[in-house]
Amino acid sequence: MQNDLLLKAAKGEETSRVPVWIMRQAGRILPGYRKVRASVKDFTQLVKTPELACEVTLEPVHVLGVDAAIIFSDILVIPEAMGLPYQMIESKGPHFEKTIKTVKDIEALRVGSTENWDYVVNALKLTKKELNGKVPLLGFAGSPWTIFAYMTEGSGSKTFSVAKRMIFSEPKLAHSLLEKITETTIRYLKDQVNAGADLVQIFDSWGGILGHDTYWEFSLQYMARIADELSKVAPVTVFPKGAYFASEQLAKVNCRVIGLDWAVNPTEARKIFKDKTLQGNMDPCMLYADTKSIKKATETMLDAFGGRNYIANLGHGVYPDTPVDHVKCFVDTVKEYTPR
Amino acid sequence: MQNDLLLKAAKGEETSRVPVWIMRQAGRILPGYRKVRASVKDFTQLVKTPELACEVTLEPVHVLGVDAAIIFSDILVIPEAMGLPYQMIESKGPHFEKTIKTVKDIEALRVGSTENWDYVVNALKLTKKELNGKVPLLGFAGSPWTIFAYMTEGSGSKTFSVAKRMIFSEPKLAHSLLEKITETTIRYLKDQVNAGADLVQIFDSWGGILGHDTYWEFSLQYMARIADELSKVAPVTVFPKGAYFASEQLAKVNCRVIGLDWAVNPTEARKIFKDKTLQGNMDPCMLYADTKSIKKATETMLDAFGGRNYIANLGHGVYPDTPVDHVKCFVDTVKEYTPR
Repeated sequence: MQNDLLLKAAKGEETSRVPVWIMRQAGRILPGYRKVRASVKDFTQLVKTPELACEVTLEPVHVLGVDAAIIFSDILVIPEAMGLPYQMIESKGPHFEKTIKTVKDIEALRVGSTENWDYVVNALKLTKKELNGKVPLLGFAGSPWTIFAYMTEGSGSKTFSVAKRMIFSEPKLAHSLLEKITETTIRYLKDQVNAGADLVQIFDSWGGILGHDTYWEFSLQYMARIADELSKVAPVTVFPKGAYFASEQLAKVNCRVIGLDWAVNPTEARKIFKDKTLQGNMDPCMLYADTKSIKKATETMLDAFGGRNYIANLGHGVYPDTPVDHVKCFVDTVKEYTPR
Repeated sequence: MQNDLLLKAAKGEETSRVPVWIMRQAGRILPGYRKVRASVKDFTQLVKTPELACEVTLEPVHVLGVDAAIIFSDILVIPEAMGLPYQMIESKGPHFEKTIKTVKDIEALRVGSTENWDYVVNALKLTKKELNGKVPLLGFAGSPWTIFAYMTEGSGSKTFSVAKRMIFSEPKLAHSLLEKITETTIRYLKDQVNAGADLVQIFDSWGGILGHDTYWEFSLQYMARIADELSKVAPVTVFPKGAYFASEQLAKVNCRVIGLDWAVNPTEARKIFKDKTLQGNMDPCMLYADTKSIKKATETMLDAFGGRNYIANLGHGVYPDTPVDHVKCFVDTVKEYTPR
């Protein structure tokens, strides 16, 4: 591999500079993506067409100069693979016509396998070939809790009170669904590694709506199980969005990298997560500022994390209306940085 | 006052039992409220009619047996008092036709004064009289940051990226608006105390979308200023929803009570907030469970917080579809509790 900075940093090895990539780097901020997106009938078609997924996955490597490609896909591949299809409604988000409510609903779901996500496998293989060792290729999945939240709620939500109603009123039922999602996700991520993913990230997008007494039981224990299995074959990143309150438990998970959102103080995180590699964590809204301010904020972040055991990123996906040159300013500042 | 348990607990004094009230206790969970609400054309009319606001404020004291009444009102009284009116759109939330974008917009706003919120003052006076010393009456306001977020964004939002764009790209402009909101809020809360409020709570509903390096600057410093001023005349509660990451800074604010959401571990909070009184923090979704489970969870919460320096509550407002007898089970469990 020509540029293995990110993998070295993930493994805790010394690197000549800090590696950088950006969550949602392959998306609406880029002109090539918007063109491809306009050429298909919906978002799902883009996810399911390996040639197009490959094309938009590669674009940020060329245009932004990031140190990794992350396969263009969606965390909701998993519910669909289990037999619960969804639609992505423009400017509204995902919508499931049917949601999971009963034991029967859960029994009707399958534990997904390769044939249910062959388009992702094919997109990874094609992208790996096209990358030709330029930078590492990252795979990903949603956390079981996050997938559970969509499957029970049927869409995004401010409170996810339908999902949470189930964990409080029917915890056994909730666990049986979480088990099935976890088993599917382990298979899915192993397939991604076999198809060329050099590292896998688990996005716990909705873990932050759980509490100090429910996070382990309904989210983290399942991510920990996935991390145990996947760590045997590739470095694993866990991104527990909004779950800083669970940091002590998170520190015990068998993963090399912890993704941090912008709520987290880097110095505090270093104390808690010790020798793990940290990834993050500038507020994506900071990229709305002028480039001089962006440069300064990026340097402050780099100073705080230090040059070792660190992968620079934002604290969440980049927002669609962010100017490309502001994103580039962030990337370039990281690449030009010399630890003080 | 016949029942001053809550005020004693707020002040750190010993009480014969733990006091309890519930955020959003005067609202859609109660039949009387729904009847009153159906009799007016919109939510705003209810807020602006002292007799009706009084009636729905008193209902939970009678029906649920809580240890405090909180005046029925809305945090968006403040923008309106400053000259920025809003509409409450059924099942969607607040909507501002005009939003704040420029220096001129901010200059056009007034620092509100009594005549701009006389209906709240009148509602408080009437309720105080009707309560006749039965339980304390609580006043409240949104945090300046939370009000700022609505005034710039124009509605609720998942990311509040418009509000945050302003703090990152035009911080001076943002501070000038926050200053004006803060000055107005201090006047407003002092008026509430003069009209009969025995304690005031500041709701920082959207502080949690700020970060470790922006929370003090754009939210907490303004709440701290309000707390300094108001603590001279009444006990103050600060409720920093989703801002556990800023706990160390929060501990230094000059307020007697800290409201906690369900993310926060009570034992950790006791260590950080030392001799402050803590309020909270059961997940409102727990009230969807059966009453046996609710009782158990409530007792676990009570055990964790201990009987002193504590006001029992949920970790956020009760959800509208919660059965009244489940809410009552929570309240009764607190009232029957004997510290183990």
